[in-house]
Amino acid sequence: MAIALATENGGTQRVEVIEGGRALAMSSDDGECRRFHAIWLRDNALDDSTRSPQNGQRLVTLQQIPADTRIAAAALQGDELQVTFAPEQHSTRFPLAWLWRHGYDGAAPREAGWTAPEIETWDASLSAEVPEGRYDAVAAGGAARRDWLAQVRRYGFAKLSGGPAESGALVTVAGFFGFVRETNYGKWFEVRAEVNPTNLAYTGLGLQAHTDNPYRDPVPTLQILYCLENSAEGGDSFVVDGFHAARCLRDEDPAAFGLLTRYCARFDYAGSAEVHLAARRPMIELNPDGEMIAVRFNNRSAAPITDVPYHEMEAYYAAYRRFGEIIEDEGLQVSFKLQPGECFIVDNTRVLHARHGFSGEGSRWLQGCYADKDGLLSTLRVLEEAAS
Amino acid sequence: MAIALATENGGTQRVEVIEGGRALAMSSDDGECRRFHAIWLRDNALDDSTRSPQNGQRLVTLQQIPADTRIAAAALQGDELQVTFAPEQHSTRFPLAWLWRHGYDGAAPREAGWTAPEIETWDASLSAEVPEGRYDAVAAGGAARRDWLAQVRRYGFAKLSGGPAESGALVTVAGFFGFVRETNYGKWFEVRAEVNPTNLAYTGLGLQAHTDNPYRDPVPTLQILYCLENSAEGGDSFVVDGFHAARCLRDEDPAAFGLLTRYCARFDYAGSAEVHLAARRPMIELNPDGEMIAVRFNNRSAAPITDVPYHEMEAYYAAYRRFGEIIEDEGLQVSFKLQPGECFIVDNTRVLHARHGFSGEGSRWLQGCYADKDGLLSTLRVLEEAAS
Repeated sequence: MAIALATENGGTQRVEVIEGGRALAMSSDDGECRRFHAIWLRDNALDDSTRSPQNGQRLVTLQQIPADTRIAAAALQGDELQVTFAPEQHSTRFPLAWLWRHGYDGAAPREAGWTAPEIETWDASLSAEVPEGRYDAVAAGGAARRDWLAQVRRYGFAKLSGGPAESGALVTVAGFFGFVRETNYGKWFEVRAEVNPTNLAYTGLGLQAHTDNPYRDPVPTLQILYCLENSAEGGDSFVVDGFHAARCLRDEDPAAFGLLTRYCARFDYAGSAEVHLAARRPMIELNPDGEMIAVRFNNRSAAPITDVPYHEMEAYYAAYRRFGEIIEDEGLQVSFKLQPGECFIVDNTRVLHARHGFSGEGSRWLQGCYADKDGLLSTLRVLEEAAS
Repeated sequence: MAIALATENGGTQRVEVIEGGRALAMSSDDGECRRFHAIWLRDNALDDSTRSPQNGQRLVTLQQIPADTRIAAAALQGDELQVTFAPEQHSTRFPLAWLWRHGYDGAAPREAGWTAPEIETWDASLSAEVPEGRYDAVAAGGAARRDWLAQVRRYGFAKLSGGPAESGALVTVAGFFGFVRETNYGKWFEVRAEVNPTNLAYTGLGLQAHTDNPYRDPVPTLQILYCLENSAEGGDSFVVDGFHAARCLRDEDPAAFGLLTRYCARFDYAGSAEVHLAARRPMIELNPDGEMIAVRFNNRSAAPITDVPYHEMEAYYAAYRRFGEIIEDEGLQVSFKLQPGECFIVDNTRVLHARHGFSGEGSRWLQGCYADKDGLLSTLRVLEEAAS
């Protein structure tokens, strides 16, 4: 039963109730078809009795919608589709563009390790154009803040330059997009050489590229490292795209990639008296549909791996070694030496950071803090929606 | 080459270098065998050149350990095993009990939906003995705090009674084990009926059992709800073990359980001006080895599901409906009405909470805040280790 012909985006769309009212099909004039089930449509109705007009939250539960919901009628009303559901006799309208955008006919299995479209993986060639913002401009908000945050979303890291060389300034930076996640290390922590370090970060040792706190669950999803002094010899920072490294591993040895996604590693930290953190998660984490969502890599806090069966352990260790070699490849590294008043932010679920060892007469003093991605992405969405 | 016979825990253990030095095997007199690869042993060496004696962190990377590491020699020294690795000629000792405890021969696939041994799932019968602590005792620390936190780990929720009916007291409760996670809702938020609610929680409506903020990634892993006033009619709270509900679904319909684990749902919140949060995660989340690690269920913030292919969507919706029915089953609910000065804490990755609608002359005023499990479990481990 064909019920409507609409013109949208310059094309013709045909809408048809199918499967005896269990679904409807929209098709464009170039032959693409998007189908929607009656129960999906009813659950996602946009009207004021289904969604609160004040805050957009759904007012009904799925249990309040009859299981045998069918499409009783459908009719075009301008650029909206009016749909009436039986047995409720509930009538509601969907913008055709909204429906088209939410089509799920294209949902299909993809190769393990795919990443979200807003992400762009990178290697050392990004050194030519390091993602960066200016403190004052980002502080002012608007387009400069939006663009800086969009770089963090796209590349998983960005520098911020021209800030004050003042203790605690990193908390102000976190406030540009969200909230500090306080932990046992404090609201923020001092990264400098100490006499009795509770963590190897608080020494002059070089640190292999790593993600922070994999022994924490949930891991902090963002980290800010803010420079106050950096006159010591050495102490350069570099970052590596863990998603790119994982994909390199997948492309050269899919079985090795599979081992690091399929088995959990363990991480542990008990470096100070009142703390014993532990977590059990894979080094490369995928959503169940194969989307790559997190990398955990940290030689300092890796605990004995006991969840890999004996017959796979040597292959697992070979995969772990190869992943580390890829991460240590200079062809993947973007390096910089922070100056006082400069900082960088990393997506700690994706981008590894490292430092070269430092020593000598000068001093190196950074402050670090954690924050979370949900707040950053929310702020970015709001800025983008305001601009569109 | 059998190299040692040891007595430990009353039993005899035989240690043998196998596979030409690529591994060693420990066997107990009842025939159980645990094997360890040379590379695993070397990486997990406990000596001061491998692990910092100050903070326990590993000082070497896997890349610094030769890939062809073999066991050159092994010898019993009391209740320790001395192992020498080639080609490094690195010699180190492992306590036999440590080795036995870290064996990975038993690592094997398990049925999807298994839970960690420290977790006990429950239903309404737990109402007879609701997990609870006394504010003053838990505040004092020691065994009372340990036992209260152990209940949270085991059951995913616990009440705390006898606290002050004072605004902000919930932050003190969070300090008993960790740190508040600040969000756009503030360090804490007021849960009471408002005129222009930015969230349906801030009305007198009943709320279906749900986990909080599934539109956030990472979700807050703990929530505290603290009662300041509760003289309104209704407004009782109840909790449901989401892991138990998910396992009920698995046991009656494994395919339905599989659908909710295999496909991502979507969640969205844009209820106030400066916020637009969104996440894409499964309703039932498993580690890659099948461990159940999180449940997300919230009708108010569920966004259109677009990651399930057309041919599976009706079955997915049927599974989602059935999961909701199980969650609404009174046989799974533990109910209570909070009194002023009482609060409860839930593991927000596992236990759903709900409230009945309220109205009438009296008032209902709760305060809520978020915190994270890693801090709670760390504090609990430290208290347990101090007691052992």
